[in-house]
Amino acid sequence: MSAAIHGGRAKCLQRLVRLDLPVPTTVALSFDAVKKIAEGLMPDVTEILEPFGDAPLLSVRPSSQDPDWGGPGAILNIGMTDQLHAKMCKTVGEAAATSLYLRFIQSYAVEVAHLDPDSFDLPETPTHEALALALKAYEEEMDEPFPQDPARQISAVLASMARAWEGTTARLLRQARGAPADAGLGLVVQAMALGVGKGESGSGVIEFVNANNGLHQITGRYLSQSQGREALTAESGALYLTKDPRGKSLQEICPEAFAQLLKFGGICRKSLREEMQIEFTLEDGVLRILDAVLVQRTSRAKVRIAVALAEDGIIPRQEAIMRVEPTALSELLHRQVNPDADRDLIVRGIAASPGAATGRLVFTANDAQASAARGEACVLVRRETTPEDIRGMHVAQAVLTLRGGVTSHAAVIGRGIGVPCVVGASDLVIDRKAKQIVAPDGRRFSEGDTVTVDGTSGDVLAGEPPMLEAALDGAFKTLLDWADDYRDIGVRANADTPADAQTARNFAAQGIGLCRTEHMFFEPGRMAVMREMIFADSPEDRRAVLDRLLPMQRADFIELFEIMQGQPVCIRLFDPPLHEFLPFDKSGMRELADALGLTMSDIQSRVEALEEYNPMLGMRGVRLGVTIPEIYEMQARAIFEATIEASRNGAPVVPEVMIPLVSAMKEVELVKTNIDGIAASVANETGEAFDYRLGVMVETPRAALRANDIAEHSAFLSFGTNDLTQMTYGLSRDDAGRFMSVYVQQGVYEEDPFHTLDVEGVGELLSIGAERARESVPDITLSICGEHGGSRSAIDFCRSKGFDYVSCSPFRVPVARLSAAQLAIRDHAAI
Amino acid sequence: MSAAIHGGRAKCLQRLVRLDLPVPTTVALSFDAVKKIAEGLMPDVTEILEPFGDAPLLSVRPSSQDPDWGGPGAILNIGMTDQLHAKMCKTVGEAAATSLYLRFIQSYAVEVAHLDPDSFDLPETPTHEALALALKAYEEEMDEPFPQDPARQISAVLASMARAWEGTTARLLRQARGAPADAGLGLVVQAMALGVGKGESGSGVIEFVNANNGLHQITGRYLSQSQGREALTAESGALYLTKDPRGKSLQEICPEAFAQLLKFGGICRKSLREEMQIEFTLEDGVLRILDAVLVQRTSRAKVRIAVALAEDGIIPRQEAIMRVEPTALSELLHRQVNPDADRDLIVRGIAASPGAATGRLVFTANDAQASAARGEACVLVRRETTPEDIRGMHVAQAVLTLRGGVTSHAAVIGRGIGVPCVVGASDLVIDRKAKQIVAPDGRRFSEGDTVTVDGTSGDVLAGEPPMLEAALDGAFKTLLDWADDYRDIGVRANADTPADAQTARNFAAQGIGLCRTEHMFFEPGRMAVMREMIFADSPEDRRAVLDRLLPMQRADFIELFEIMQGQPVCIRLFDPPLHEFLPFDKSGMRELADALGLTMSDIQSRVEALEEYNPMLGMRGVRLGVTIPEIYEMQARAIFEATIEASRNGAPVVPEVMIPLVSAMKEVELVKTNIDGIAASVANETGEAFDYRLGVMVETPRAALRANDIAEHSAFLSFGTNDLTQMTYGLSRDDAGRFMSVYVQQGVYEEDPFHTLDVEGVGELLSIGAERARESVPDITLSICGEHGGSRSAIDFCRSKGFDYVSCSPFRVPVARLSAAQLAIRDHAAI
Repeated sequence: MSAAIHGGRAKCLQRLVRLDLPVPTTVALSFDAVKKIAEGLMPDVTEILEPFGDAPLLSVRPSSQDPDWGGPGAILNIGMTDQLHAKMCKTVGEAAATSLYLRFIQSYAVEVAHLDPDSFDLPETPTHEALALALKAYEEEMDEPFPQDPARQISAVLASMARAWEGTTARLLRQARGAPADAGLGLVVQAMALGVGKGESGSGVIEFVNANNGLHQITGRYLSQSQGREALTAESGALYLTKDPRGKSLQEICPEAFAQLLKFGGICRKSLREEMQIEFTLEDGVLRILDAVLVQRTSRAKVRIAVALAEDGIIPRQEAIMRVEPTALSELLHRQVNPDADRDLIVRGIAASPGAATGRLVFTANDAQASAARGEACVLVRRETTPEDIRGMHVAQAVLTLRGGVTSHAAVIGRGIGVPCVVGASDLVIDRKAKQIVAPDGRRFSEGDTVTVDGTSGDVLAGEPPMLEAALDGAFKTLLDWADDYRDIGVRANADTPADAQTARNFAAQGIGLCRTEHMFFEPGRMAVMREMIFADSPEDRRAVLDRLLPMQRADFIELFEIMQGQPVCIRLFDPPLHEFLPFDKSGMRELADALGLTMSDIQSRVEALEEYNPMLGMRGVRLGVTIPEIYEMQARAIFEATIEASRNGAPVVPEVMIPLVSAMKEVELVKTNIDGIAASVANETGEAFDYRLGVMVETPRAALRANDIAEHSAFLSFGTNDLTQMTYGLSRDDAGRFMSVYVQQGVYEEDPFHTLDVEGVGELLSIGAERARESVPDITLSICGEHGGSRSAIDFCRSKGFDYVSCSPFRVPVARLSAAQLAIRDHAAI
Repeated sequence: MSAAIHGGRAKCLQRLVRLDLPVPTTVALSFDAVKKIAEGLMPDVTEILEPFGDAPLLSVRPSSQDPDWGGPGAILNIGMTDQLHAKMCKTVGEAAATSLYLRFIQSYAVEVAHLDPDSFDLPETPTHEALALALKAYEEEMDEPFPQDPARQISAVLASMARAWEGTTARLLRQARGAPADAGLGLVVQAMALGVGKGESGSGVIEFVNANNGLHQITGRYLSQSQGREALTAESGALYLTKDPRGKSLQEICPEAFAQLLKFGGICRKSLREEMQIEFTLEDGVLRILDAVLVQRTSRAKVRIAVALAEDGIIPRQEAIMRVEPTALSELLHRQVNPDADRDLIVRGIAASPGAATGRLVFTANDAQASAARGEACVLVRRETTPEDIRGMHVAQAVLTLRGGVTSHAAVIGRGIGVPCVVGASDLVIDRKAKQIVAPDGRRFSEGDTVTVDGTSGDVLAGEPPMLEAALDGAFKTLLDWADDYRDIGVRANADTPADAQTARNFAAQGIGLCRTEHMFFEPGRMAVMREMIFADSPEDRRAVLDRLLPMQRADFIELFEIMQGQPVCIRLFDPPLHEFLPFDKSGMRELADALGLTMSDIQSRVEALEEYNPMLGMRGVRLGVTIPEIYEMQARAIFEATIEASRNGAPVVPEVMIPLVSAMKEVELVKTNIDGIAASVANETGEAFDYRLGVMVETPRAALRANDIAEHSAFLSFGTNDLTQMTYGLSRDDAGRFMSVYVQQGVYEEDPFHTLDVEGVGELLSIGAERARESVPDITLSICGEHGGSRSAIDFCRSKGFDYVSCSPFRVPVARLSAAQLAIRDHAAI
């Protein structure tokens, strides 16, 4: 690794030399050499200085191009002495020579000798007196004159750079950035091109793309009589590069040098296969190229640059695909707070659903709906969200909760519907009476105040900072289309609503891998029917009540099938515990008692009877399906009737019906018998034939362990890694937040297993399950449909086990498509 | 199987014939033969009748000795005709012959022809007129005369018996009793010995043991001029067998026949290797042995009889061990409601902790303690119990809850401390205001009313029925000592308190396999300290508070170590979530606020902050140990200081320290580092050396899957099958009650997995865990310590996987010792 770091900038400059670009003489120093000099083991540096001739004037900079890896920040210069100064007074003029010397002394005194910067302020005009004062100040502080030997200067500079690299701060920074522990500091020593002196002398920096959007655009600055990057920081006097109505430009002043610069830029891009920022100097009108570094860029620019390089034939498409980190795509899918904006932080929580949005504070789902009805953007704040809040979440611009982690209810729903969401902002206090939130710093924000939720960073900001819009441009689509040519595993979306399904379709998901049907029952009109069903006393009564839901469910499915145009739609049968449908508080119970004509004590005793200690591990999923089969029967009928209806209007639909929370083969057998019966009835009643596939959501460890016999009754197994992770770890995702950060910090868990698929534990169950399922049914369809589905590590794992597809939130589909393609390219390259 | 049933009684009689006992001529009929005759496929029965000569007088009875397998209950007689009657009038007298004929007609009419019994009542005196009337009644009902052909009689009798055997009721009964589906009805046809007639004629039944306690004792009855078992049901006139002050006895009347009977009894016992009930007849003073069947017996008698047979050299010890069902031992360990007592049922719940106890109703743990203080026996009734109820459970005679299943809190604690317990009595209603329970039949029982909880049957009874005391007699100990000679897997006890430990020791447990320490913190004085600890703000404050618990914990462990006298004691570190220590209601919070000098809102917000959605999957076990290490540090110190102290007073102690709820190797590493540090400190401070073993409780599927790396830091792994079952199934034991019975009835789960170890699912994880642990540490100690530990199927499984020991409730230790021995004997026999 350290070799690469030694080499970065040096290799790049060597290539430019080979391309006949006018690069001043350059020597690369390895970290070993730098260390030896620093430790006094290599007292003779003449070998280094040799290529530069007599009276060398040099610049030294790190060879690493990564500015975040710590170590010396500045470019340090070497070689100015009294003697050279005197000589240069004649060649470039006194003012220029003295100014240069003063700057040498200043940077040497501050960066190398670590003297007080105040004593070496640059004077307004570079006089001999000022120079004498500076030299005197140096001598007084150091008890010796300013070194007049270039060899001594370079030794001191190298030693100081090595010390800076090895300092604690730099080490910690590198560690945090993921640099290898033995990363070394290579240096590049280069003959200085003088930007001060006679004729048109100066220095500048040029880029050929817009770093924000990646479009072709020449930007940069040029400053006469300057060195290095001074043009970028100069308060005045800097020139534009291209002709500009606002002022003078390099193009006008030195058209030839400018034309050369453009030509060299093209050579750099083609040869270095990247968009480079070029540092240049004019020395009496002669162009010198000092350095070329990668253009720093936004994610959006990254995509466009990669696609453009491939379209221009400079890099192959695979490489364009490999150059974009999949997570960078997430940023493009959502509005972002402009990185340049001031951030007035209210509180920091967990970034749970990416994107940023601004709105007025509301504290209940009802208020969110009222706000939406008035056409006002709102941000819904809840201690935590429950299924009853979903309507509010759908209409809110963003959601903020005080409790929960990345897989809490709010987070899952937020990602599903693409609403920015920050959860677990536990430092925030809600003052319900005053309808206010209280920030950790004591500031209070009331209902109606404007705040911004940044679900990408986890920040909650006061007011409305400027935003960058989402950027689903052509380059984005092109890149993903290319990715699909390489991808070798399917990508579906988890989508519960027509809006989700449309998003999935827009992002080219290959079907729906998980359609949770319970959300459909939380809609206002349906909730009341569900409650009535819960209070029904006999299967007949339940059936009668559910019959009223049938047309609504059927309509839901018809809409989904039509949007998906014949692509597979995997519908999970009803899953949540019934108590989620009952009111929690007295007033809700009283309303319900009125509505159903029951007494309060009837309601209370039913609510109490349905209470659970551990709802996660309770009466839900297939356990409801077995004990109250009427619900699944209604759903199956709705699915099949919708299948016939939708197939009539368009592509033939083959629905997939998925049974949740299975722990024993018999559960599947029982439900399958029932559902096959419903299918036969529907076929008889309508006289229409249709196909469907019945499968199992593998969420309990037992289902994975018994996959061999469960597979016998299943067309597919889809691993629900959320619940499977909870049960494998014995860890509720809603309660894990309290210690997960400590656990990850201390390395107890390498990663939050709700965030990154735990290959060692949960993955073991996936492997066992897949293997055993295939033993009994070799061609069974295998997939995962948890929150992990879109992550690179999960896709990597699923590919290695030969799974058929992954399914993830609609907004993660592009990320998953890209990740899957990268993994396929990686494996192909490895062969 | 059917062969055995054909053969039971027939084989037994054949053996008695070979021993020269005076058994009348006997012929065995296989089920095939019976069926052929019944179906008319074998019209000629002369072959059957041949051995009995002319004018045969025969009895027919089932060959199966199990009275519970359904089929014909009565012994049916065959062969009486007008002709034989006339002949017998001369040989045995008119009265006897007519009485016999009347009885023949009665039983044939009722049992075979299914006529109305009222029409065939026996007359006071057996006159010719009565006989004529009976024959006429038969002829009128049947439109044909009473059959005068013995062959026709036997065909009809056999057909009726076969029909009875194959009837629905009998089938269902057999199925319920676990009989094989193809079990057949063999029959025994025997020449009738006449108990009516000249000289001393009569019949009787004799047993040589007391069927209640298994001690030697001659019991039975004899009735002159009777047939079969009439002596047992006769209202008057029956004789005692041995001399008796209350009346005449067979011993006095027929001393020779009596002496013969004793001799034959001894031969039967020795030859049939069992305690038999003998049915005999005196025919004009001559003894006939008609039948010998197993003495029906209580569990207590079963043990004593088996031991006595072995001690008398009649059966080998292995066979004595195999003859006692392990579950029968449970009955001996507890008081039982006398099976003969009338039962006034209040409600039926789930039998959760065996034994029966009577007391006055109380509704809170406090009232239970007050009751105990007054010296009054009480029964604690709760909706469900929480850790705060444990003090009340300790002093109550019995516990009754409305919710929960066999592994609910109440059930686990009840079994642990040997308190009878019925749970899940969901048909009961608690009227809190009135302090009453309301039975399903509407009866109300108030606080202070006397009720009896039968934890063996699950019944709750009104009042105080008579009881049988527990019976830990010599035979019980002898049998278990013998069992230990064959047993090849260790048996430890789960014991939390000195009382538990003493019970474990009494039952010869080989150490404590699971000592749950949290109960120690729920004692009144300690609870307050725990709460203070929860509100402490820094590790230092927590440590200071915990220092006050240290001497108490140390004293706990010293007591346990001393009771266990150097046997291993495996101490599980603190496990429950902290919110269990906080008050739930306003008044409790107010008290706590006062005690700690905090505001109500401080208390409320901490209570809220510690609330969990799924406490089972939350912040407990090692997760507390990692995030709040001070608790484990205090416990480790207490354990080590107690080790030194207890070793000083007796056998050297090597404590085992067990970490709960592990899901990742790093957790073990972190805790181990801490605890090793504490051990080193204690060794340094005291200057005393000691050993200890650190291990892991495998309760999460992930711990089993990662057993290879977890084992590297562990001296032992103990599988906590309760939690492991919950997580493998994704099923909370506290919430499973609502559908478990439906699931088991429908065969979705073969058994309640909390009751019977799920070998196919949970067992898979145990296998995987054991295998992987041994891969990295071949000699690691493996065990299970869940509620399953004492069950035969779990022991069978653990033996097959080479586990070192099982650990179970103290009261199940004898059961486990016996089961383990039986399994070892079974496997040895199979070789």
